[in-house]
Amino acid sequence: MSFRVPKIDHIDPHWMAAAERHQNDLTKPPGSLGRLESIANRCAAIFGSLTPPVDAARIVVFAADHGVAEEGVSAYPREVTAQMVLNFLNGGAAINALAQANGIDLVVVDAGVATPLPDAPGLIRHHIADGTRNFTREPAMTEAQAEEALEAGMAEAEAAIADGYNLVGCGEMGIANTTSAAAITAALTGLPVKNITGRGTGADDACFTRKCSAIERALARHRSHLAAPTDILQRLGGFEIAEMCGFFLGAAAHRRPVVVDGFIATAAAALAVRVDASAPDYMFAAHRSAEPGHAELLKWIGKEPLLDLGMRLGEGTGAALAMKLIQSAVAAFTGMATFSSAGVSNRTP
Amino acid sequence: MSFRVPKIDHIDPHWMAAAERHQNDLTKPPGSLGRLESIANRCAAIFGSLTPPVDAARIVVFAADHGVAEEGVSAYPREVTAQMVLNFLNGGAAINALAQANGIDLVVVDAGVATPLPDAPGLIRHHIADGTRNFTREPAMTEAQAEEALEAGMAEAEAAIADGYNLVGCGEMGIANTTSAAAITAALTGLPVKNITGRGTGADDACFTRKCSAIERALARHRSHLAAPTDILQRLGGFEIAEMCGFFLGAAAHRRPVVVDGFIATAAAALAVRVDASAPDYMFAAHRSAEPGHAELLKWIGKEPLLDLGMRLGEGTGAALAMKLIQSAVAAFTGMATFSSAGVSNRTP
Repeated sequence: MSFRVPKIDHIDPHWMAAAERHQNDLTKPPGSLGRLESIANRCAAIFGSLTPPVDAARIVVFAADHGVAEEGVSAYPREVTAQMVLNFLNGGAAINALAQANGIDLVVVDAGVATPLPDAPGLIRHHIADGTRNFTREPAMTEAQAEEALEAGMAEAEAAIADGYNLVGCGEMGIANTTSAAAITAALTGLPVKNITGRGTGADDACFTRKCSAIERALARHRSHLAAPTDILQRLGGFEIAEMCGFFLGAAAHRRPVVVDGFIATAAAALAVRVDASAPDYMFAAHRSAEPGHAELLKWIGKEPLLDLGMRLGEGTGAALAMKLIQSAVAAFTGMATFSSAGVSNRTP
Repeated sequence: MSFRVPKIDHIDPHWMAAAERHQNDLTKPPGSLGRLESIANRCAAIFGSLTPPVDAARIVVFAADHGVAEEGVSAYPREVTAQMVLNFLNGGAAINALAQANGIDLVVVDAGVATPLPDAPGLIRHHIADGTRNFTREPAMTEAQAEEALEAGMAEAEAAIADGYNLVGCGEMGIANTTSAAAITAALTGLPVKNITGRGTGADDACFTRKCSAIERALARHRSHLAAPTDILQRLGGFEIAEMCGFFLGAAAHRRPVVVDGFIATAAAALAVRVDASAPDYMFAAHRSAEPGHAELLKWIGKEPLLDLGMRLGEGTGAALAMKLIQSAVAAFTGMATFSSAGVSNRTP
């Protein structure tokens, strides 16, 4: 694949150490803010600054349809993908409410929705095709489509940065996309399909059986083409997953903290980690979803999520909540007084 | 004790059911927002409304000194309590940064700081005495002091509501107050001292040994006076803990959601639960702190915390983060479109 892999540098451990020293000057016992401290330290290292700016946050919701939906793997009909995109654009979805409540801007990308969508403010077109092919029968997308989607995702990360956002994240919508995410998870981790497949939006027993069967058949069909992450993406992915993968790589290449939402976003993030082992330095895992494959995939990429609230909606809803935690962590880091400036007695060494 | 226990009603299960029905009309798979749904449902039941108002949030930080500090149970000198109160008033502490980042107002109450504090905007005086007595030798406070502190805390909850706040929480500052909280936890739960005692702000081994010893000696001294929650409070408590206990009871009596911060606040909440079994209906546990007694105490009051970030600072820092989650949960509940209004296909029943 001729995909232009961006150059991603590891974050500088000297900045991590400098941030840690600053943490220990602040008016609190060392380590007492727990993970808020490591979050802020990593933001400092990402920006190479003890005043990392994370005030301007954008979530990009990538939407696409999936050929594998025709296998009867979802509790909802395929047209819901486009209907929910319209709901996003009209401000009626959970991600709209959560983004607004947390001061986060939102844009929606048509990565490959099968139903035609009208022009609307906030809708961006990176429409690769009218949904992927059914990956139980053939590759989900062509090599050229995978490349185009990865490039589109990187371009969206660059656009967010050009628009002044210093904290970015993404979410997704796509009926049947937990099937794609579970297939990717199985291909990456080698774990049994039944261990990493969940009920998505609420599959009943028959639907869940069809879902597991579809994934097993896909893994069998494509088994000799699942070595490279781009091959896994092409064979088993979705256009929104490919664009999110590009988005994560683009954010990391341009040194911005990027928030990974739920199971499907994490599948995209895991592919990005396989493309470049420096990428996770820039990633924050928002939450642990109720989908069983998510916890396994988070472990596989070495990320401990910030939240564990039993959410399983996608759309970037977990990312919206996590962004405020990241902003809070940095607010404490940059806003607190030091022991000497506040005249507070430090403990005896 | 002649403490005027306020009347607290259980929340109405019919409102919980009505809220649950509304959740299932919203454009998301049923249950897919996880705990955000139960949070919003409980807020609806607390206010008796499908549009519960939780936009105006206040955290009250109660500060006091502890006689048991003279047993050498803390890594920091006693004067740090007053120094940190001044830091709160000057805006330099972690809680200032986190409250500001999350749009939460803050007031500080002198519940019994031993060092005289100058008048300052944002400082409220409910000063019971210049710190408690050393409870390894005598009761921490008199019955009259415990009553006065409980009433003061209730008055602060009422003041917050009168000032227009519909979401309240509290935090604390007091050198040696994890010793008091651990003693209360042992008295309430009967668990071994070594299982529920932690290192507070960072006690070394010798300090930790002194801390466990102080708690063991206090429990032995007061063992025949630890049946009623008000007795536990009087014998082993602190003035900030007593005022927080009153605050929780006052918030519940006036039907407001109230956020419980860390270990010390949870000790106060647990005493409130023992005073009135309806009180927990109104409580949200913000986070699980790194103090080992906290997880046990949360289990004992039947609360699953919203966050688990290894924090152990107090001050209301966990409450500040949790309040934004509660506001987010309600924002989704009140702001989302329904399947019919958004023209989104629901799943086939």
